[in-house]
Amino acid sequence: MTKTKTNPGNYFEDFKVGQIIRHATPRTLTVGDAALYMGLYGPRFAVQSSDAFAHAIGYPQAPLDDLLVFHTVFGKTVPDVSLNAIANLGYADCRFEKPVYPGTTISTVSEVIGLKENSNGKTGTVYVRSTGSDENGDTVLSYTRWVMVRKKDESAPAPEAVVPELPDCVKPDALGAAVPSLDLSRYDGSLSGSPHRWGDYELGERIDHVDGMTVEEAEHQIATRLYQNTAKVHFNQHTEGQGRFGRRLIYGGVVISLARALSFNGLGNAFHLAAINAGRHIAPLFAGDTVYAWSEILEKAEIAGRSDIGALRTRLVAVKNRACSDFPFKAEGDGYADGVILELDVWLIIPR
Amino acid sequence: MTKTKTNPGNYFEDFKVGQIIRHATPRTLTVGDAALYMGLYGPRFAVQSSDAFAHAIGYPQAPLDDLLVFHTVFGKTVPDVSLNAIANLGYADCRFEKPVYPGTTISTVSEVIGLKENSNGKTGTVYVRSTGSDENGDTVLSYTRWVMVRKKDESAPAPEAVVPELPDCVKPDALGAAVPSLDLSRYDGSLSGSPHRWGDYELGERIDHVDGMTVEEAEHQIATRLYQNTAKVHFNQHTEGQGRFGRRLIYGGVVISLARALSFNGLGNAFHLAAINAGRHIAPLFAGDTVYAWSEILEKAEIAGRSDIGALRTRLVAVKNRACSDFPFKAEGDGYADGVILELDVWLIIPR
Amino acid sequence: MTKTKTNPGNYFEDFKVGQIIRHATPRTLTVGDAALYMGLYGPRFAVQSSDAFAHAIGYPQAPLDDLLVFHTVFGKTVPDVSLNAIANLGYADCRFEKPVYPGTTISTVSEVIGLKENSNGKTGTVYVRSTGSDENGDTVLSYTRWVMVRKKDESAPAPEAVVPELPDCVKPDALGAAVPSLDLSRYDGSLSGSPHRWGDYELGERIDHVDGMTVEEAEHQIATRLYQNTAKVHFNQHTEGQGRFGRRLIYGGVVISLARALSFNGLGNAFHLAAINAGRHIAPLFAGDTVYAWSEILEKAEIAGRSDIGALRTRLVAVKNRACSDFPFKAEGDGYADGVILELDVWLIIPR
Repeated sequence: MTKTKTNPGNYFEDFKVGQIIRHATPRTLTVGDAALYMGLYGPRFAVQSSDAFAHAIGYPQAPLDDLLVFHTVFGKTVPDVSLNAIANLGYADCRFEKPVYPGTTISTVSEVIGLKENSNGKTGTVYVRSTGSDENGDTVLSYTRWVMVRKKDESAPAPEAVVPELPDCVKPDALGAAVPSLDLSRYDGSLSGSPHRWGDYELGERIDHVDGMTVEEAEHQIATRLYQNTAKVHFNQHTEGQGRFGRRLIYGGVVISLARALSFNGLGNAFHLAAINAGRHIAPLFAGDTVYAWSEILEKAEIAGRSDIGALRTRLVAVKNRACSDFPFKAEGDGYADGVILELDVWLIIPR
Repeated sequence: MTKTKTNPGNYFEDFKVGQIIRHATPRTLTVGDAALYMGLYGPRFAVQSSDAFAHAIGYPQAPLDDLLVFHTVFGKTVPDVSLNAIANLGYADCRFEKPVYPGTTISTVSEVIGLKENSNGKTGTVYVRSTGSDENGDTVLSYTRWVMVRKKDESAPAPEAVVPELPDCVKPDALGAAVPSLDLSRYDGSLSGSPHRWGDYELGERIDHVDGMTVEEAEHQIATRLYQNTAKVHFNQHTEGQGRFGRRLIYGGVVISLARALSFNGLGNAFHLAAINAGRHIAPLFAGDTVYAWSEILEKAEIAGRSDIGALRTRLVAVKNRACSDFPFKAEGDGYADGVILELDVWLIIPR
Repeated sequence: MTKTKTNPGNYFEDFKVGQIIRHATPRTLTVGDAALYMGLYGPRFAVQSSDAFAHAIGYPQAPLDDLLVFHTVFGKTVPDVSLNAIANLGYADCRFEKPVYPGTTISTVSEVIGLKENSNGKTGTVYVRSTGSDENGDTVLSYTRWVMVRKKDESAPAPEAVVPELPDCVKPDALGAAVPSLDLSRYDGSLSGSPHRWGDYELGERIDHVDGMTVEEAEHQIATRLYQNTAKVHFNQHTEGQGRFGRRLIYGGVVISLARALSFNGLGNAFHLAAINAGRHIAPLFAGDTVYAWSEILEKAEIAGRSDIGALRTRLVAVKNRACSDFPFKAEGDGYADGVILELDVWLIIPR
């Protein structure tokens, strides 16, 4: 006798607008995860690297990397939201609201906020608002993402189309909740690795982050398992070898983390990722590829009530197998330049 | 002048029944090891993943993965027991007796409980009972394994054959010592990732764990070093490239951990491995291979005095480069089906 | 508009004798780093592996591996000292002065102590004395290294040549500051894995460490990022594929750590690396290569005021793709034998 107790994931027709999904598995993040995160990407921001540095400026201790928290929250949603997804279409309105320290347990709840079947009748777009909380129930981050999901039964009726209105950009005054009031007299620019603060960056300024990082299969697999992200395409060469690309696909979050770590070179004091306004994975990354990145300053904002920090809105572009001294981005027409794999519109916090 | 202070390992004629071996190196397991374990295999059981979840149901904090403890205990025995082994023949009567938390120091002692020279006069089987203890001297797990070991001097006389009697199966009432009394009212099936409890599984039920995981050289080397397992075949391409397989052999414990982690998909609440009744590695695993797994429910048992938990005896089968929807196991005759690499008869603990 | 805020590194003409460089990024080392260090190299010294063992003999808890501290301190210096280096020429007078426990924050300051332009007018040698300190400002280790660095502007005038006098060897009485007074009655040779103490080693004794370890790209990249070492040659296949070797070069510190970990087999009680008297990387290591090692006892020294420990001065030689049973070192003439990649003259501390 054979019965199935395994998770088939949800198909497009399984989602309803207003549905609340409490995701497995709650996850306690520790200094062990922080060390592995450093080994996998090599970030060098002083606040997250050093308890002593963080404590001197006003944190109780070094917080975890914002993206380690993001990937953990995201990973929880995969078995319920995107196991049957064809494509991760975008992110919006992602806000980091509370610093996360080692020992914190993160769990995630998602609400279905939009549904729109595609005209082919085979797939549809699912919009979810996912919220990561700590063991006290406080929100540490929330974001909207939308994915294209298969229908299981193509004859299932299309739901009423609901497409949520999404802000182009998080409002500056919503930023900074995850940063305590800083004592800038103790913010040491030699230790942080950069003399440049909020006032030193200019609108339209573009920064080539110079360095490139090649990704190995073992690295992205270890990273993605660390987040308990179960998307099959990242781990199974036996099936992916027969698939569209002939190889395992690297989790897009690995690209985001590498680009963010590389951005230290030029944005060394922009230690906190406060918001992701919009994000899009342009092309896949595979093991053996080398990731480069560059940033453009899109906007500068003061934050009400905060004279210690300011916000820089940047476009972080990741590129593969191509240096960024010429800032590759859009191509002629409306496509992207060759090699571009990620466009991420973010708010960064930097001392004033 | 040259002298040798290096460990030559023990040969068959070096073992005596009744001999006690205190193994090096005691090892403190930490949240760092837990993070690496998660990154290497991707387990998702809520109890081991979350301090908050574990605490809610009655643990002081999240215990370490049972198999991380097993591999650590096993690793200690390698330099003394199996450095000159040709094959790891089997495991029996392995019982997990105390939960292990980060910060615990594990050390291992083995007793030689059986010896039997093979008729070829070149090798023999050594049976050892190995016991892992914490820094208080409490047993955390014990198990019997037997290995085929080379003789150094083929003219050494054969010892009297002693073959220990081994139980086919750990008795159910010996199970559960490593699980505190659980408050099931706080066991949250959404967070644990499965609604299925002890009563929902049926004898003979077979569960395809669906997902496959490809293993890289870096991953199994990092894992095996983490356990301070020094078996040469796992690490040295220079010699193994000239050897029987032409490549490094992956430590069998990596297969066990992967199969166990994959089994979350279908056995998500069976969070504790309480015993290994018997285990056998059928075929070697190499880097680049993809591991799948399936389970069959062999027995269900109540545990005396425990209304909170029950035991499921399962056969966990790991298979390489072949999906398990047809539950590959035995072949015609008495061999195993193509692709089968591990058969493990275990007791799992699951809430009632 | 484009401006550069990225770190161009220093060129030969940027260095001045007497210059003090405070390096970014301070780094808190944790049990997470310790676990990753163990997974990457597999050291088995009981003192660093076990809180219980360390505590029994007089440490408050297990200290971090000395080389994890070394690589962390070294890593800090790379962006300022060797980003434009052609070669890492040597190390001298490296002393480990204080045990480092998980939770310690390490920062590094370097002083330029020598400069000598090469006769080609294109490069020069820079000598720096680098000091790693903890969050209390106590020195944990200091060392001198010298590197060959490019000039940016070949017409820049040569500085007055200053070549520091470097000791051939750290004096024995400077050793042992990082080891508390040990209670040897509780030093358990079964747990430590070796019965051999200071008195058991003889001058001129050579020890083949027997085992070989193959290195993968993912492993050395994870290691080198863990130390926040940003040298480009270790990470970027896109550029290195076009470079001198056609591939990524492994950070020399990986070789040192592997050789040191392998040396456990024969020097199991020599648990503390107290000093590096001199060190030289002879040839590059690449992924796929297998590292072997052997040691020779060059000197034995008592340490004033310490009846618990003695010092062994050893030459640790690492070799690739060649076993060390014939102790490969120098070749006919003044070169090195085929396969030799590292010569390291060190002081080890071992119980008496």
